[in-house]
Amino acid sequence: MSKTPAHPPRKLRIVVVNTIVPEGGEHDAALAVQVMRGNALRIGLLESGYDIVASLPADIYLPERIAQLQPDMIIIDAESDARDVLEHIVIATRDERRPIVLFTEDDTTSSMDAAMAAGVSAYIVAGLQSERIKPVLNVALARFRQEQKLLAELSETRHKLAERKVIDRAKGILMTHHRLTEDQAYQKLRSMAMNKNLKLAEIAQRILDVEDLLG
Amino acid sequence: MSKTPAHPPRKLRIVVVNTIVPEGGEHDAALAVQVMRGNALRIGLLESGYDIVASLPADIYLPERIAQLQPDMIIIDAESDARDVLEHIVIATRDERRPIVLFTEDDTTSSMDAAMAAGVSAYIVAGLQSERIKPVLNVALARFRQEQKLLAELSETRHKLAERKVIDRAKGILMTHHRLTEDQAYQKLRSMAMNKNLKLAEIAQRILDVEDLLG
Repeated sequence: MSKTPAHPPRKLRIVVVNTIVPEGGEHDAALAVQVMRGNALRIGLLESGYDIVASLPADIYLPERIAQLQPDMIIIDAESDARDVLEHIVIATRDERRPIVLFTEDDTTSSMDAAMAAGVSAYIVAGLQSERIKPVLNVALARFRQEQKLLAELSETRHKLAERKVIDRAKGILMTHHRLTEDQAYQKLRSMAMNKNLKLAEIAQRILDVEDLLG
Repeated sequence: MSKTPAHPPRKLRIVVVNTIVPEGGEHDAALAVQVMRGNALRIGLLESGYDIVASLPADIYLPERIAQLQPDMIIIDAESDARDVLEHIVIATRDERRPIVLFTEDDTTSSMDAAMAAGVSAYIVAGLQSERIKPVLNVALARFRQEQKLLAELSETRHKLAERKVIDRAKGILMTHHRLTEDQAYQKLRSMAMNKNLKLAEIAQRILDVEDLLG
């Protein structure tokens, strides 16, 4: 009798995005090599216990398909046109970032820089033995989490700076119009926000809007 | 006659940091394996055209040695104690960050997360064939440049936020004490800064200091 584990680990759901091989392209030697490599990658992923939920070309339907499939990771398998494919994927994941792993033959520094700037979590030149896939993808996931944390911190700091500007301008208006000290103006803002059940920055923005309207 | 190229490419200067193998440790089977792997890594680096300027243990002299040697990259070769070694290196490069590449046997998620948080540019589990070293190190360099850019942006945004707080508090003081509008207070700050040849935030900080002193 076989025992099923209480919590079978969920398989990582992966979308593989590949170069479009044109009709009859398998007769082209370079493309044939790429098709073979692509197959080897897929076999390696399956052997390592990943779930390939789709294998898609990088076309205009990609953003929609990714939104539907909600994969845990996107793997780009693109020998020569990696930069074009990457551009499509960056657009497709702009609103909801996902770990992106790039397998390519392109080892130029400019392509690597472009991929890093686009937020690629792993950039692997010239394939991988199948037993190396798992640690590489795990590092990519750890990398993605860390970068998300950093980006979240950056976005939060930017947001605070923007809020601060709004609040301070509103405070200035209150100080001038009502001859208040800075502290009094702040208290007034606070009580206005509480009365209206709004955030400080929101009530401040309303004050600026009114000031704008009144000239 | 051999021709020397006009600009021979400068070799990347690498410091390898390794586990300390205790006296007589080469008789220990696990340590012997590690020593062999370490040698294979060094040979691979040299074959790939890198300059190993030093091979150092992770001890208390490491920060000083790294400051002296100014390597382009630090490679950690640590089978089991990677986390300890990494901690030393993070301290050693705190003031001047450098690309760090970690070769390890440790494939646990928590170690990967810790390494990413510490700013490791590449985390390689279970060695590398020597022909793969070069693209992996190049990706690590690209990764390092990108992360530095992101960290610089974060630090700049934080700095702006801090400056903004100081300037706005100083403006508030001027508005209250001199019955100025926000705009007048800002103009006053600006002219004070220009007269003293200081940055706006610096003159603002002085105003806050005086205010503090006067209570």
